[in-house]
Amino acid sequence: MEVFLECLPCTLRQAIEASRMATGDRALQQAIMEEVVRLLAAFPQYKSSPELGRVVHQLVKERTGAADPYKRIKMESIAKALQLYPVLKEFLAGQQDQLYWALKIAVTGNSIDAAVSTKIEIKEQIEAELTKELALCDLESFAEELRQAKRLLLIGDNAGETVFDRILLEKLAADGLELIYAVRSEPVINDATLEDAYASGLAEVARIVSTGCNVPGLLLEECTPEFQEIFRTVDLIISKGQGNYETLGDLERGIYFLLKAKCAPIATLLGVKVNDYVFFRR
Amino acid sequence: MEVFLECLPCTLRQAIEASRMATGDRALQQAIMEEVVRLLAAFPQYKSSPELGRVVHQLVKERTGAADPYKRIKMESIAKALQLYPVLKEFLAGQQDQLYWALKIAVTGNSIDAAVSTKIEIKEQIEAELTKELALCDLESFAEELRQAKRLLLIGDNAGETVFDRILLEKLAADGLELIYAVRSEPVINDATLEDAYASGLAEVARIVSTGCNVPGLLLEECTPEFQEIFRTVDLIISKGQGNYETLGDLERGIYFLLKAKCAPIATLLGVKVNDYVFFRR
Repeated sequence: MEVFLECLPCTLRQAIEASRMATGDRALQQAIMEEVVRLLAAFPQYKSSPELGRVVHQLVKERTGAADPYKRIKMESIAKALQLYPVLKEFLAGQQDQLYWALKIAVTGNSIDAAVSTKIEIKEQIEAELTKELALCDLESFAEELRQAKRLLLIGDNAGETVFDRILLEKLAADGLELIYAVRSEPVINDATLEDAYASGLAEVARIVSTGCNVPGLLLEECTPEFQEIFRTVDLIISKGQGNYETLGDLERGIYFLLKAKCAPIATLLGVKVNDYVFFRR
Repeated sequence: MEVFLECLPCTLRQAIEASRMATGDRALQQAIMEEVVRLLAAFPQYKSSPELGRVVHQLVKERTGAADPYKRIKMESIAKALQLYPVLKEFLAGQQDQLYWALKIAVTGNSIDAAVSTKIEIKEQIEAELTKELALCDLESFAEELRQAKRLLLIGDNAGETVFDRILLEKLAADGLELIYAVRSEPVINDATLEDAYASGLAEVARIVSTGCNVPGLLLEECTPEFQEIFRTVDLIISKGQGNYETLGDLERGIYFLLKAKCAPIATLLGVKVNDYVFFRR
């Protein structure tokens, strides 16, 4: 999926944020931003925004020596989400349509995105967002496919959101599915890695695997043969978040995308409003 | 005043907005953004953000042939502000402290800024913003200087805001001051030009002059000798908006700055919160 013009200021904003998380040295932050802007000039050469994001965030890591600038943010997000876990379970228990609301809980976790805002107060935001219904919802076809399915792959997005995904996976495990949870191969922005998935308690309900790919999205051609095999052979795939959609949305294979539309280009593409939650097959 | 790192994404966002206002040709919009990003890489060479903004907006105008991409927005802002004019006059008439509230009305007009958001609903926004008090307020020293003053220069900012400035000028004219209202020498973003100042009815209360400078701010060394003479000889100067502050804030001469802090770097510099209104002498 193309790099939208709106990705340019957004990438710069993220680069400033990442630089400041990685170092307190203002001269270094400025020097990094000079390099980032020069990198950004090549934006038409990138096939998607996550590929551009990768080089920018790698640059920040290389120049500062900080291997994981968002580590503290990710740990805090997971800790806060784990505090919310019983609240979310109780909320789900009170609902009629368990599948719909398990999906809705998982996508509400997509609000926890340091790439969009680091200042969110998770608990308050989640409570307000939880009851907002899905603006696109291919639930019927999903439920239909689910009845035939034995193995499901969930492609994760952000740390913290992982705990919300766990609730969806627990619902699917109760239906007897074999579950695989995939994460980035190394830290990029606040995206979940193996460590984050384990810290979120996902190992209790799914097999956790690295995709082998380090973009804040998923480039299948860069993934490990093991992950490619999983991707090819599972019965169902749910992909979380915009970054995964931007890199997987044009593939032939049917995938269920579960995300919050966080910016105008993606919302426009999907025919929804910014901040709407969607679940759709493509 | 330095180009802040936050100016980089903000400048890109403005460039996208301006390109889309200037042309519907998406390939041209993309080509312009490629050039803008290359220009942006030289950001450390610019002394202030308005100087960077000038080259970006000039590029948009040159590449699209649109001499004034914000013309429609500016005309709409002025028309809406003129509709509000009687409401604002009535509001002021109901206040005890006429000088404070005339200043507050003028600075509330600084909310009308297409550079920050083109989607604002002016009337609703203004009504909500009008009663918010000034977070910094050098009213006493201003009132003191005003008693001695004969000539006052008001340096305008955005079109539409001009109508709000008119209310402040009408209050000052009633006190017997000779008033001069200064505008940009040519269209840049939604900043007021001679045409906009006349359309706002300012000629009834002040002498309208062009500064001779075309940045979205004011570089004294680029101004006409006539304007430099005015600047040097008036008793009091009020400067509206961030762009003027970013270019005039480090001068020796005392100036009263009246603005809404629209971004984190400026708010931090002034020790206020983003979206606070301020009136201070420097």
